[in-house]
Amino acid sequence: MNEQHNHIVKSYDDEQRALLDELIRMGQMSASQLEAALDVVERRDDRAAERVVANDEAIDALERQINHDVIHLIRRGPLAGDLRVILAALRVASDIERIGDYAANIAKRSLALNLAPPLPHTRGLGTLGRMAVQQVRDVLDAYVNRDGAAALYVRERDAELDTLYTGLFRELLTYMMEDARAITPCTHLLFMAKNLERIGDHATNIAENVWFLIHGEERMPPRDKRDDSNTAVV
Amino acid sequence: MNEQHNHIVKSYDDEQRALLDELIRMGQMSASQLEAALDVVERRDDRAAERVVANDEAIDALERQINHDVIHLIRRGPLAGDLRVILAALRVASDIERIGDYAANIAKRSLALNLAPPLPHTRGLGTLGRMAVQQVRDVLDAYVNRDGAAALYVRERDAELDTLYTGLFRELLTYMMEDARAITPCTHLLFMAKNLERIGDHATNIAENVWFLIHGEERMPPRDKRDDSNTAVV
Repeated sequence: MNEQHNHIVKSYDDEQRALLDELIRMGQMSASQLEAALDVVERRDDRAAERVVANDEAIDALERQINHDVIHLIRRGPLAGDLRVILAALRVASDIERIGDYAANIAKRSLALNLAPPLPHTRGLGTLGRMAVQQVRDVLDAYVNRDGAAALYVRERDAELDTLYTGLFRELLTYMMEDARAITPCTHLLFMAKNLERIGDHATNIAENVWFLIHGEERMPPRDKRDDSNTAVV
Repeated sequence: MNEQHNHIVKSYDDEQRALLDELIRMGQMSASQLEAALDVVERRDDRAAERVVANDEAIDALERQINHDVIHLIRRGPLAGDLRVILAALRVASDIERIGDYAANIAKRSLALNLAPPLPHTRGLGTLGRMAVQQVRDVLDAYVNRDGAAALYVRERDAELDTLYTGLFRELLTYMMEDARAITPCTHLLFMAKNLERIGDHATNIAENVWFLIHGEERMPPRDKRDDSNTAVV
């Protein structure tokens, strides 16, 4: 009887561990897709861009698998602590899926960018992109290690990403005013920069879920959101 | 014993009904916020815009309440069908929260828009906006009535919203090339239009959750996504 009980408990743990492994794999795939997308923009490589777009489906499939596994785990009747782990996994999977979408969209927009001559602002996008990759990698580490301090740090640094984004936003508007031929590619760059800013928001959401894993529904300390591009005028 | 059992079952049902009531209220708040935001853009009313921005917090608070209630309901050990209802509610709440965010962002960007003379494209934004509102209202109805056919219809009509969005995107780019002074307000209009297109995507997500409520994890029939703005060149 006791042995059977142990067997069931162990198998539940195994399933939960498998869920978290899938989630980490999904996170790493999204981070790699983002790096590949940024690389594609820099190298102006249309074929590689199309590969990044096509690879997004694998991330979506993994999210469906995770949703399926979560339902299965909840049906087994988790304990309170496990329930928290499972619900956090569900939310984190959704954020990772969006990060993958934004990476694929950056690759897709690079196709339009490559129809015009190279723009100097691609470098600014690269800087923003590397910071977004770092935020994604760091928050995934914080999640794996259940490190609340690291999660808080990721959330704090999101303000830097916002500031960088707003700066690039203004630069691009100014450039568009000086050269009407640059309007189309600059608009795509604007949306690509916005995608990176949104990826930062999703990294922040994941950070909040790390906090939830440790502290339950108690809210994270408040913070300033510094994206001023919404009301920016040049 | 039996009576007590009935009592517990009924109370579980009551809690679940309360959850769905909160969700519907949240959905109506988001749809109203979106209508208010579109109205504010048309009337160029900065004070009303600030009210829309401030009202978003009430939607966020309702989502936190729903997340809390979902955890409580799952802890009570739902039956398989109830679990589906609860998980769908969790996902729908997240989509409604995003719709509210986009509505608030439209109101916020109208402040930047109002610093420049009125643009003719505000009308095109209004058309796109009314369609987005309709999609949100229709999918909420489909959700309340568990109407799979209505949900499918909402998802199908999303392609029309995408086509309208791509058209407005091209129009705005063309206008920006003709008049450099219009670049800043047009850029905000571009992002506002993108918000409306994204709201359509969230309505589609909700439609997929209505499908999930009825058919479980079986996927909805595939469809075409027709947002060509990602590679649009003018």
